Amino acid sequence: MGLNVFLSGEIHTDWRNEIETGCGDAGLDVTFASAVTDHGASDDCGPAIMGAESDKFWHDHKSAKLNAMRIRKGIADADIVVVRFGDKYKQWNAAFDAGYAAALGKSLIVIHGPDHQHALKEVDAAALAVCEHPKQVVDMLRYISNGTLPA
Amino acid sequence: MGLNVFLSGEIHTDWRNEIETGCGDAGLDVTFASAVTDHGASDDCGPAIMGAESDKFWHDHKSAKLNAMRIRKGIADADIVVVRFGDKYKQWNAAFDAGYAAALGKSLIVIHGPDHQHALKEVDAAALAVCEHPKQVVDMLRYISNGTLPA
Amino acid sequence: MGLNVFLSGEIHTDWRNEIETGCGDAGLDVTFASAVTDHGASDDCGPAIMGAESDKFWHDHKSAKLNAMRIRKGIADADIVVVRFGDKYKQWNAAFDAGYAAALGKSLIVIHGPDHQHALKEVDAAALAVCEHPKQVVDMLRYISNGTLPA
Amino acid sequence: MGLNVFLSGEIHTDWRNEIETGCGDAGLDVTFASAVTDHGASDDCGPAIMGAESDKFWHDHKSAKLNAMRIRKGIADADIVVVRFGDKYKQWNAAFDAGYAAALGKSLIVIHGPDHQHALKEVDAAALAVCEHPKQVVDMLRYISNGTLPA
Amino acid sequence: MGLNVFLSGEIHTDWRNEIETGCGDAGLDVTFASAVTDHGASDDCGPAIMGAESDKFWHDHKSAKLNAMRIRKGIADADIVVVRFGDKYKQWNAAFDAGYAAALGKSLIVIHGPDHQHALKEVDAAALAVCEHPKQVVDMLRYISNGTLPA
Amino acid sequence: MGLNVFLSGEIHTDWRNEIETGCGDAGLDVTFASAVTDHGASDDCGPAIMGAESDKFWHDHKSAKLNAMRIRKGIADADIVVVRFGDKYKQWNAAFDAGYAAALGKSLIVIHGPDHQHALKEVDAAALAVCEHPKQVVDMLRYISNGTLPA
Amino acid sequence: MGLNVFLSGEIHTDWRNEIETGCGDAGLDVTFASAVTDHGASDDCGPAIMGAESDKFWHDHKSAKLNAMRIRKGIADADIVVVRFGDKYKQWNAAFDAGYAAALGKSLIVIHGPDHQHALKEVDAAALAVCEHPKQVVDMLRYISNGTLPA
Amino acid sequence: MGLNVFLSGEIHTDWRNEIETGCGDAGLDVTFASAVTDHGASDDCGPAIMGAESDKFWHDHKSAKLNAMRIRKGIADADIVVVRFGDKYKQWNAAFDAGYAAALGKSLIVIHGPDHQHALKEVDAAALAVCEHPKQVVDMLRYISNGTLPA
Repeated sequence: MGLNVFLSGEIHTDWRNEIETGCGDAGLDVTFASAVTDHGASDDCGPAIMGAESDKFWHDHKSAKLNAMRIRKGIADADIVVVRFGDKYKQWNAAFDAGYAAALGKSLIVIHGPDHQHALKEVDAAALAVCEHPKQVVDMLRYISNGTLPA
Repeated sequence: MGLNVFLSGEIHTDWRNEIETGCGDAGLDVTFASAVTDHGASDDCGPAIMGAESDKFWHDHKSAKLNAMRIRKGIADADIVVVRFGDKYKQWNAAFDAGYAAALGKSLIVIHGPDHQHALKEVDAAALAVCEHPKQVVDMLRYISNGTLPA
Repeated sequence: MGLNVFLSGEIHTDWRNEIETGCGDAGLDVTFASAVTDHGASDDCGPAIMGAESDKFWHDHKSAKLNAMRIRKGIADADIVVVRFGDKYKQWNAAFDAGYAAALGKSLIVIHGPDHQHALKEVDAAALAVCEHPKQVVDMLRYISNGTLPA
Repeated sequence: MGLNVFLSGEIHTDWRNEIETGCGDAGLDVTFASAVTDHGASDDCGPAIMGAESDKFWHDHKSAKLNAMRIRKGIADADIVVVRFGDKYKQWNAAFDAGYAAALGKSLIVIHGPDHQHALKEVDAAALAVCEHPKQVVDMLRYISNGTLPA
Repeated sequence: MGLNVFLSGEIHTDWRNEIETGCGDAGLDVTFASAVTDHGASDDCGPAIMGAESDKFWHDHKSAKLNAMRIRKGIADADIVVVRFGDKYKQWNAAFDAGYAAALGKSLIVIHGPDHQHALKEVDAAALAVCEHPKQVVDMLRYISNGTLPA
Repeated sequence: MGLNVFLSGEIHTDWRNEIETGCGDAGLDVTFASAVTDHGASDDCGPAIMGAESDKFWHDHKSAKLNAMRIRKGIADADIVVVRFGDKYKQWNAAFDAGYAAALGKSLIVIHGPDHQHALKEVDAAALAVCEHPKQVVDMLRYISNGTLPA
Repeated sequence: MGLNVFLSGEIHTDWRNEIETGCGDAGLDVTFASAVTDHGASDDCGPAIMGAESDKFWHDHKSAKLNAMRIRKGIADADIVVVRFGDKYKQWNAAFDAGYAAALGKSLIVIHGPDHQHALKEVDAAALAVCEHPKQVVDMLRYISNGTLPA
Repeated sequence: MGLNVFLSGEIHTDWRNEIETGCGDAGLDVTFASAVTDHGASDDCGPAIMGAESDKFWHDHKSAKLNAMRIRKGIADADIVVVRFGDKYKQWNAAFDAGYAAALGKSLIVIHGPDHQHALKEVDAAALAVCEHPKQVVDMLRYISNGTLPA
């Protein structure tokens, strides 16, 4: 069973690569997509292409909308949306993506540590799986793909 | 033009009442809904009705799902979803509601202060209006209802 | 918050009445619907109106399709679908209704005793609430309607 | 005409393989999917990957939700959903899948013996075909694919 | 259970009135709609309002599209669509309405005599009920509304 | 048959009032909605409520999005969308509304003079009626409502 | 631009082959589908596979539903649905397919001779093209595919 | 990330080719579609294939509907719809396409010069990006595809 997976959320650790590499090593037929994860490019892409803005709100607005084209395509094509919440920052875009995916009926996997358990209860309640480590997502994608459990 | 409006987000200030009262004083035909805003009841409703859980995760899970029945109904019926982000807490459920509403094509109004501008840029980019004060939402609902601008 | 609730499943105990009476006593704005619960009428309605069938399969087929018009309308209009599994019989129609409701994105409440827990795990996994007694459904509908928890 | 077919239900006989082999022998362009049919893995997959649960309800809940990701994908991609009811067990998940598929407008084929005819009348009423043997499904898929009837 | 019913098809007998009167006499909460059944007005409404056409094709085209506004509204609002095929004429618009209603997931009741059985098999196969007389539709609507079978 | 009608387009003549008065005089059950038609308020509503913008693009952007909440609600609720193109201005918002309504499957009536016939051919091709005068829309709404043609 | 085209209707002339050959000769990237056009197989497929019926209604019912699996798949996958009405027979299934396709928003092409013009006005009104000869459909598919008009 | 892009609007400059060539030079996996851009063929295609019309309205009507089959397919398949407004003509079809795409939830990019800013404010408000030059669209498609900003 081939799967399309969108990876959303925290961009300061190597978790996307860990999942993609793990699935590659397991020989799974999984195609990944995600937002542009270069923080600087993501922040400035709108004005860089469409022209500078003096007001920070519109600077961010232009960039967020340009990024939205990629994110919406990624979520629309996905069978499964994985959202990771890290230790820092507000990460409201991650929660926004989770809500967006849930409303479209996408299968949702949430990754977060125990510290965020209570604050993420509404997001977790909409998910089909909640875990702490990227390796667990690899294990899930392998099980979903071919029924194999970790040794 | 009658409107259904769902009010999501921060529960520690009086903003819901301010909007409802303002619209009532203006004689608008607006029906409001929101999640249960009693923090204690919202946290414990699941185990209180369906039985206690020893694990905090499942305690929260039961409650969050019971609350979800009310929230989904409220958003599904809404023409406009207003989401307010306050000064404190993670408020991931507010961002989740915003994403959920956006994916359903609801008109979205976001309220937040200037401190959160950059962190909320993706949420703001999906909104049809961004403002700082509940009174501005009253002004918008009056304008949408009957075309009248504030004096 | 007014609610439309469809009650599906077991027809040999008084549970529908218990929920409707409980909500009425609590003064809730809840409208209930359900399939025709007169077992004989439900089995024979098709041939009684459209003409007899010599083959039991088609006798049942005609009746099941006539009943389906009422059931589909009831589920389509519902905000919440409550499905109760009793102690006896196969009750595949109850599980079918649960799947039908889940696919339409309806909020699902499942009632069953502990004996059926393992056999109903897939149905429970699609539900927003699982409980054992009709009174708990009354408590949930009151909480969803007006935020009040049982004393 | 290429077809995607999801096979749901009874896992204790060889019927899935019988259908897949029959279609392969007939040279049909049919792609099959189904839930994980290893009973043990299916029951324990959630805790095995995401961590143990002391309460059987949550053990089953975690597993059922993980399995749901595969099942939803399989049904969503399917043109035709085949559901087989065997002689034993409650098989509520099979009826749930049938209801889920029906609500999505999928073409539904039901396989069951004469003993279950009355109990499955609502499921049969939603189906486009009802039969008793896997070979009949092969015959149907060949007819749908290329118009050939069995000799 | 209140019902919206759209009555489509043959316009040369009194069947619409028979159903509406029968449901009225039974005290049912059923709201009926149908296309304009004045044959002359239906044929000429387009040119009468929007200007004459020399070409019969466009004369009919203008009228058919104007009628379509009423028909689409009626079918869109309907819970149940009843289509009657009479003894004469091609009645392709009736079959078109049946297909249109089926694709929208509306519950479909077909009325026709035994002479048309083979020619209508595809339409009947999409219906939830097939009968011969308007009185049977009254009996069905009463049963669907309140569970009462004819005496 | 009660109808919801959204009136879009040209705001410099009295055509909306002509249609509403005509339907009122005919005693029709039609509810009308439209965008705010006060040109000044429509242009400035965003900054007036949410704060001034130095850049004309963002001034217009804020206002257009606030107006969009009313327009989307009006079109979403409509059975029929009437779009009038006048003699002057680009009126791209009118054509945008027509496309928006067409994609949602709304019944579309277009009003324009003969000068614009060729330029509006794509819009007319998506419409169920094309006419020149508001009185013709009154005649259509009367015919759709109760089957009466103009004397 | 690759196209999926479903060919529905009359089965007694060579029109399907004429269109497929014409498009093949023109080198177009068009994939065709249609119902099983072997009249005998189409009539008897249900009982042949699922068991005989003594009642003609149920004989036809079983076959029509089995055929429906192929037809629904064909229409669901189609960009364009072509429906041809011949000189003979009721052809209600063709009109049913046209209504079904129209409700799904498929582009509809209708082929019929001048004798049927008035009787097909509602079907024609839902079509994007009406013509008399299969060669005209080839010309349309070529134009839609690559913009080339017939010499 | 592969993308499907529909290019709508002005046909008198080389902008479509500029975007296609730019994306080709950048090695992007983007598939383009657009309406037939041969002005003469687009105007006359309907009568050329289906027969002449004496009335200009119906001449245009036939052609516009034939073109609509290609345009609807193109927009339905698109992830992103780019609409360019040139200096001349009414271009209502461009605004219609923009509205149609917006209602379907497609990501919308609008290209126009500063002279049209105010007149296009409603269209711009529905867009995720507004720019002036085709090269900027190439830059956006490259960024969306692979995250690279222009040097």
